Amino acid sequence: MPEVNSKAEYLIGVDLGGTKILAGVFTNSLKCLSRAKTSTKAERGPAAVIERIARCAQDAADECDIDLKQVRGLGIGSPGAIDPENGRVIFAGNLGWKDIPLKRELEKRLDLPVFLQNDCNVCTLGVHEVELEARPRNMVGVFLGTGIGGGLILEGKLFTGFNRTAGEVGHMVLEVNGPKCTCGNRGCWEALASRSALFRQIQDAVHDGQKTVLCDMLGNDLKDLRSGDLRKAIRQGDKFVAHIVEEAAKYTGIAIANLINILSPEAVVVGGGVMDALESEMMPVVIETAREHAFPGSDKGVKILASKLGDDAGITGAAVLARRETK
Amino acid sequence: MPEVNSKAEYLIGVDLGGTKILAGVFTNSLKCLSRAKTSTKAERGPAAVIERIARCAQDAADECDIDLKQVRGLGIGSPGAIDPENGRVIFAGNLGWKDIPLKRELEKRLDLPVFLQNDCNVCTLGVHEVELEARPRNMVGVFLGTGIGGGLILEGKLFTGFNRTAGEVGHMVLEVNGPKCTCGNRGCWEALASRSALFRQIQDAVHDGQKTVLCDMLGNDLKDLRSGDLRKAIRQGDKFVAHIVEEAAKYTGIAIANLINILSPEAVVVGGGVMDALESEMMPVVIETAREHAFPGSDKGVKILASKLGDDAGITGAAVLARRETK
Repeated sequence: MPEVNSKAEYLIGVDLGGTKILAGVFTNSLKCLSRAKTSTKAERGPAAVIERIARCAQDAADECDIDLKQVRGLGIGSPGAIDPENGRVIFAGNLGWKDIPLKRELEKRLDLPVFLQNDCNVCTLGVHEVELEARPRNMVGVFLGTGIGGGLILEGKLFTGFNRTAGEVGHMVLEVNGPKCTCGNRGCWEALASRSALFRQIQDAVHDGQKTVLCDMLGNDLKDLRSGDLRKAIRQGDKFVAHIVEEAAKYTGIAIANLINILSPEAVVVGGGVMDALESEMMPVVIETAREHAFPGSDKGVKILASKLGDDAGITGAAVLARRETK
Repeated sequence: MPEVNSKAEYLIGVDLGGTKILAGVFTNSLKCLSRAKTSTKAERGPAAVIERIARCAQDAADECDIDLKQVRGLGIGSPGAIDPENGRVIFAGNLGWKDIPLKRELEKRLDLPVFLQNDCNVCTLGVHEVELEARPRNMVGVFLGTGIGGGLILEGKLFTGFNRTAGEVGHMVLEVNGPKCTCGNRGCWEALASRSALFRQIQDAVHDGQKTVLCDMLGNDLKDLRSGDLRKAIRQGDKFVAHIVEEAAKYTGIAIANLINILSPEAVVVGGGVMDALESEMMPVVIETAREHAFPGSDKGVKILASKLGDDAGITGAAVLARRETK
């Protein structure tokens, strides 16, 4: 690993996603100075993607007139199963990666210390440190996007457990005979309330003859459907879409109650693209359902809130990771 | 609080239950020297129960010829919501207690330092320290009895979280529209797999005309039904009872998979009266179902096992608590 240059005052945070890569340059007090974005192009294979990550980080540095020599460390959040000690992506389905030495390869290209973690863990770090100012000793972050993931801060630290997989909350079964999930089981939270679940329910219903303003907006095949379209449809009075989103919010509330019962956190923060697009539609239902289902006493004083970091959660958390590791 | 007599070499562990009180005297290396048992008589009110706890502890000491002056501390596990710092039972439904200063009252009677924790947390401490020799840094204990509860050991320590209620696993919803639970919700693990859930399902079915050897054994009203009777019925080939128990084992496996996904523990240990009576009937199904439902990779190397401590889990864990607190 390249040595930490303790005089270097900047941090880079990278959010590696299945479709896009985001990079941000941060000061040591976690102020974001610049951002860069590029498509992932996972189909070109790991070497090409790693090259794109390096270029995206350089673009972000260049944007705010900083040389990489002034950067103390780079944090990166990756989807999938991660080995943080060895800096390897063990498995990431949406990238098609298996055992990729991401840390080593990026360090070679950038001559910077690189620190790797799972993307939802990284987002949780960002929410905890920047949004909640590191105040709650115990916090759960959950992220509703294409899938559903989460991260745990316990006793002030990121908790990853024995297999480093703690926080894999999306595959919590909420309905034993519920809809099929990509993981092979039935009734996982992810199969009930992720973007994929919402879109599948809508597309199946439209296929069966359900009317919705979404078809007026996008055509009957609902090509290019996005979370924001659901918000637009609901605001145009589409009761069908409103019902689907409300059900997803109820399941999310129940999942959060389960997490409160199991972990007794001080705060549960909900983020991700679905929540960013549908916060005002979903959060009241999420909170009400979670409070109804939490065991009496266990949710007393517990904050349940939507993250305001939006797309910045990943790069911010990755910068937090780099700061923690280079202290 | 009475001062810790550091020369005193013994510990007392007490298990306060809704129907019975158990006490045990332990050496500092957690060998049990004697046990005592008495009925709780909760209907007589808190003062009478506290008197009975004190007498039970004295009986256990007397049994192995020890004077209370030779005891360094007394640990006690109580059902319900506990405030360990102040030694109060905030609320315990099955005792009918509300805000009882159990620690202070027992210290007054016994002139010994007393340490209080929730009963399932105490059992988890006992399993971790004595049965697993404190090896796993991260462990979940779950206990199937009249209700279902649990405890968490995270990074080597008992984890209780923000409201001290962590490990309230029995009210994890597994089936959104499942059977009604005593907590007011539907489809909690406890409503699907506790002793009460098993007995209710059997009694409802018998009421609807289901035939079972349990009626030959106990009469049609199934008065005095016990977990051990289910084992006897299954061994006599009663397919109806076998099916009910198998379903409960499946739900338990799914709940354990959820806990593995969320917490990534190294070991999950299952105890409690239902498991003590039905281990060989339930555990193979529990393990198979948990492994099927755990997210790929997250259960790698994770031990899922039945506790062998049986009725001793509570007193042993309470002695562990007393040892930790008087070190």
